[in-house]
Amino acid sequence: MSTAKPVAPCDFVVFGGTGDLAVRKLLPALYLRDRDGQLPATSRIIATSRAGLDIAGYRDKVRGELGRFVPDASLDDAIVARFLARLEYASIDFADADDWSELTDLLPADPGKIRVFYLACAPALFGPICTHLATHGLVDDQSRVVLEKPIGRDLASARAINDAVGAVFDESQIFRIDHYLGKESVQNLLVTRFANTFLEPLWNSSWVDHVQITVSESLGVGTRGGYYDNSGALRDMVQNHLLQVLCLVAMEPPTYVGRETVRDEKLKVLQALKPMTPDDVAHSTVAGQYTAGLAEGGAVLGYKDDAENVASRTETFVAIKADVRNWRWAGVPFYIRTGKRMERRSSEIVIQFKPVPHPMFPDSEGSNEPNKLVIQLQPNEGIRLHMTAKEPGPAGTRMRPVSLDLNYTEAFHRPSPDAYERLLMDVVQGNPTLFMRRDEVEAAWAWVEPILVGWQQSERGPRRYPAGTNGPTDATTLIERDGRTWHEGATP
Amino acid sequence: MSTAKPVAPCDFVVFGGTGDLAVRKLLPALYLRDRDGQLPATSRIIATSRAGLDIAGYRDKVRGELGRFVPDASLDDAIVARFLARLEYASIDFADADDWSELTDLLPADPGKIRVFYLACAPALFGPICTHLATHGLVDDQSRVVLEKPIGRDLASARAINDAVGAVFDESQIFRIDHYLGKESVQNLLVTRFANTFLEPLWNSSWVDHVQITVSESLGVGTRGGYYDNSGALRDMVQNHLLQVLCLVAMEPPTYVGRETVRDEKLKVLQALKPMTPDDVAHSTVAGQYTAGLAEGGAVLGYKDDAENVASRTETFVAIKADVRNWRWAGVPFYIRTGKRMERRSSEIVIQFKPVPHPMFPDSEGSNEPNKLVIQLQPNEGIRLHMTAKEPGPAGTRMRPVSLDLNYTEAFHRPSPDAYERLLMDVVQGNPTLFMRRDEVEAAWAWVEPILVGWQQSERGPRRYPAGTNGPTDATTLIERDGRTWHEGATP
Repeated sequence: MSTAKPVAPCDFVVFGGTGDLAVRKLLPALYLRDRDGQLPATSRIIATSRAGLDIAGYRDKVRGELGRFVPDASLDDAIVARFLARLEYASIDFADADDWSELTDLLPADPGKIRVFYLACAPALFGPICTHLATHGLVDDQSRVVLEKPIGRDLASARAINDAVGAVFDESQIFRIDHYLGKESVQNLLVTRFANTFLEPLWNSSWVDHVQITVSESLGVGTRGGYYDNSGALRDMVQNHLLQVLCLVAMEPPTYVGRETVRDEKLKVLQALKPMTPDDVAHSTVAGQYTAGLAEGGAVLGYKDDAENVASRTETFVAIKADVRNWRWAGVPFYIRTGKRMERRSSEIVIQFKPVPHPMFPDSEGSNEPNKLVIQLQPNEGIRLHMTAKEPGPAGTRMRPVSLDLNYTEAFHRPSPDAYERLLMDVVQGNPTLFMRRDEVEAAWAWVEPILVGWQQSERGPRRYPAGTNGPTDATTLIERDGRTWHEGATP
Repeated sequence: MSTAKPVAPCDFVVFGGTGDLAVRKLLPALYLRDRDGQLPATSRIIATSRAGLDIAGYRDKVRGELGRFVPDASLDDAIVARFLARLEYASIDFADADDWSELTDLLPADPGKIRVFYLACAPALFGPICTHLATHGLVDDQSRVVLEKPIGRDLASARAINDAVGAVFDESQIFRIDHYLGKESVQNLLVTRFANTFLEPLWNSSWVDHVQITVSESLGVGTRGGYYDNSGALRDMVQNHLLQVLCLVAMEPPTYVGRETVRDEKLKVLQALKPMTPDDVAHSTVAGQYTAGLAEGGAVLGYKDDAENVASRTETFVAIKADVRNWRWAGVPFYIRTGKRMERRSSEIVIQFKPVPHPMFPDSEGSNEPNKLVIQLQPNEGIRLHMTAKEPGPAGTRMRPVSLDLNYTEAFHRPSPDAYERLLMDVVQGNPTLFMRRDEVEAAWAWVEPILVGWQQSERGPRRYPAGTNGPTDATTLIERDGRTWHEGATP
C-alpha cells in the first residue's frame, strides 16, 4: 500500500451513480484513493440516478459492488465502512429541472470546497445537466465538470455539447476524460521520450520507417450492442484513444510537461494530420465487422447477432494509414488499428526503425531485421527494443534477433494503479494535462468526419472478418502494399 | 554441440607445447574444434618444447590436462582418442639452429597444406625462431605464424620483432593474437554497432558525454610474478587489450566488416589519440600497485611480496584519460582503467550519454540520471541500457532508474566459445580481421611509450591501493575532478 498526499476537501457528484462506469471504475477508484489516505475526512461522494434508491439501499449496493471490483487484498472492513459513510444518494431525473431538490439539499453553498460533477451518463444529457446545475446555483469557481466520451458523434454535435457545457463552465473547469491517458504506460510514454536522451535523436523521419498503433480487444460488444451499433470503432476508439496515443508519440517536446503545454503540442499533431479526401478514405482506411468465429476459448456469435441488427453496417474494426505532415514526420506513415473480437487483447505502439543504411557484414548468415521499439500498453506494460546480435559461435558471423527488455511490473514489483485513480485526483487538483481540451476534441472530429462520411457514402459495407482473427484481409493489404507488415504482439 | 564447416587440412606447430598457454588454452580450444567436426582427418598438432618428452609421454600429459581444462560435459573418450592421435612431439631447443631435426622430420614438404606456427613462447625468441624456420625450409606460401603478446616492451623492441618476423613472413601471414578480440562480446560489439541502426546516431560527441573502459581482475600476479614485474599493467593490458577495445568503440564504420577494413579504421583511432606530453602523463594517467588486503575471500599479500621484489615500481593498476582527436569524438574523454587485485572481476564498456538537454518535468520527484549503455564483456556477457521511467503511482511523476537488459547466455541458451577457438580457426582460414596488424601494434606502442617514460622519470612510484579495492584514490580523483564517476559493475 502506498500513501499519497491528501487532496483538498471535495464533493464528488456522480450523475449515473448506479451505472456501469460508476460501479466498475469510479467508486473502486475513489475507494482505493480513500484507502491510501488521499481523501480528506470531509470529502463526500454524492450519487445521483433515476433508480429511486434510498441511501441505505445505495450503500448496500456499493458494498456489494466493491466486493466484485476491488481486489480482495485491497479490501479492508474499516476502510470500506469509512468509505460507505462518505456516500450520499439523490434520486433525480437529470433532464427534469423541477426535480432536483434531493440533490440541492445535499449541496448547500460551501465556498472553497471543490465540487466535481462527474457526468457518467449519455452525452445528450451533458448540456441539459450543466444548464440545470447553473439554474440551481450549484456551480461556482471551485466547481469542475468531468465529461465521459463520446463528446458527440461528429464535429457538429461535439461543438454543440462543448457550447452547452461551455456556457456554464469555463474551459479550465471542464475535464474531458480519456482513460487511456491515465494509464501508467501512456503517461510513461512522456517520461520515456523526455526524461531520456537516447530516443529523441532517433525520433524522426531520418531514422523511423513507420509507426504502428494497435489496440486490439478479444471481447465483442457484449451487452453494449445497442450503444455500440450507433457508434462504431472509429467514434468509440479512434477519435479519442488512438489519436491521443498518436499525438503523444508524434508530438514535439513541449517547453515542459505541464498543464497546457502538452495539450498545445498534441493539438499541433492533430492539425498536422493530412485531411482525408474521398480518395484517401477509399485507399487508406479499412472498416471491418466481425462474423461468427472462435474467441475467448469457444464459438462466439457474429456482430450482427450481438447487436441484434442484421442490417448493421457498423464497423467493429478500423485500420487507417495516417500522414503527419510536419518536418519531423514527413514521409513516415502512422498505421493505426483497433478492433473487437480480435485474436488477443493487446495495446501497443511500435516504432519501426529504418534498416541499416548499408550491409556491413557481407559474409554473415542469419537475419538482420531492422530495429523496432515496442511499447506495450496492455496487458503487460513494458518496453522491448528489438535488435540484432551475433549468435555465439566460433566460425563466421551469424545474426540473430534478440531484445532488450523492460517489464514494468517486474521492475517496480507492484501492479499499476487504475487510470481512473490518477485521473480523478487530477480533477480535484485542477490538473488538466491528461484531459482533452475542446480544441483537441474538435480537431480530432474534424479529421475523423470525412472517414465517417466516406464510409456512409460507400456502397460496400465493412469488410467481414471472423471473430478471433486480426481483422479483414484488406487491413493486411493496407500495410503490405507498402512493403510492411503489422506487428502482432507476443502471445500472452 | 554445434557443428561447424571443416577448415582446410592444417598442421599446427606449437612452440611452447608444454607451456601454460598451450595446456590451458590452445589444446583445449583445438580439442573442442575437433569435437565439433571442424578439423579434417589429416590435420596434425605438433608440439615442440625443450622438455624432452617422447610422444607417448606428451599424449599422456595432454590427456590429463584436457581433463582439467575442458568441461566434463564436452569430454568424450572417442573424441579424446582421435584428438590425441593427431598429436606429434618434437624436442628441440628453439634458439639452437642445429637441433631441429626432430621437427623437420615431422614436416616434410607438403605443398598446399596449411602450416600454422604458433609462437607460445617468450617474445625474445620470435625473431630467432622465424629465422630458423626459414633456414630449415619450413616456410612456404601456405604458412602462417601466430605471435602471442607482448610484441616487444616499447616501440623500438616491437619494431625489431616485427622486422625479424617480417623478414621471413609476409604481413598477410602474420597473426598477432589478442585474445580479447576473440571474445564473443567484443566481436558482438561490431554487430551491435553496425547491424543495428539505433546506436549509430547517438554514437558521437553530440550525445555521448564520455566513455569508460574497465578491465578489472580480482586475481593478483600469481605465479607470473617474474614475468609481470618486468612488464606491468600498461604493457600487459593497456597497450593491447584496452586500446583494441577502445578502437572498436571509437572507430568509424568501415566500408564493410572485412579483412583490412576494420584494421584500417582501428589504426585511424590510434592515430587520433592525442600524444601524451609529460604534463599529460602527470595529470591524465595514474599508476597503482596493490598492497596487502582482502581479496578472493581471504587475506592476500601485497604485490611486492607476490613479485618477490621489495623495490618494485611496477604498476599493477593503470587509469588513463585519453583524448580521441577527431570529428566524432572531439571533447568526449575516454577513461580507461585496468588493475589486478581489484574488488571484482569485470570487463565492461560504459557509454555515458549526456543528460537531457532541458528538465521537462518541473514538478517531478526522484532522480533522472543520464542514460548509460553498459556492454559487459565478462564475466556475464550482456548489454544493459540504463534509462529513466515513471514509477507507477496515482499522483505526480516520480522518476526511477530502470534498465533494458540483454543477457547473452540467457538469450542464446548456451555459453560462448572460448576466444581461442574462434581465433585459431580464423588463422587457418587466413582471416586477419581480429588480429593486430603491424602498424596498429606500433601505433599503440607509440602512444603508450611517453607514459612509460614519464613514469620512469617520475620520482614518485605507483600509488598504493589495498588488494580488493578499486584502485588508488588518485584514479578516483582523475575522473571526479571532471564531475564524473567510475561506473562500478554490478556485484557478480
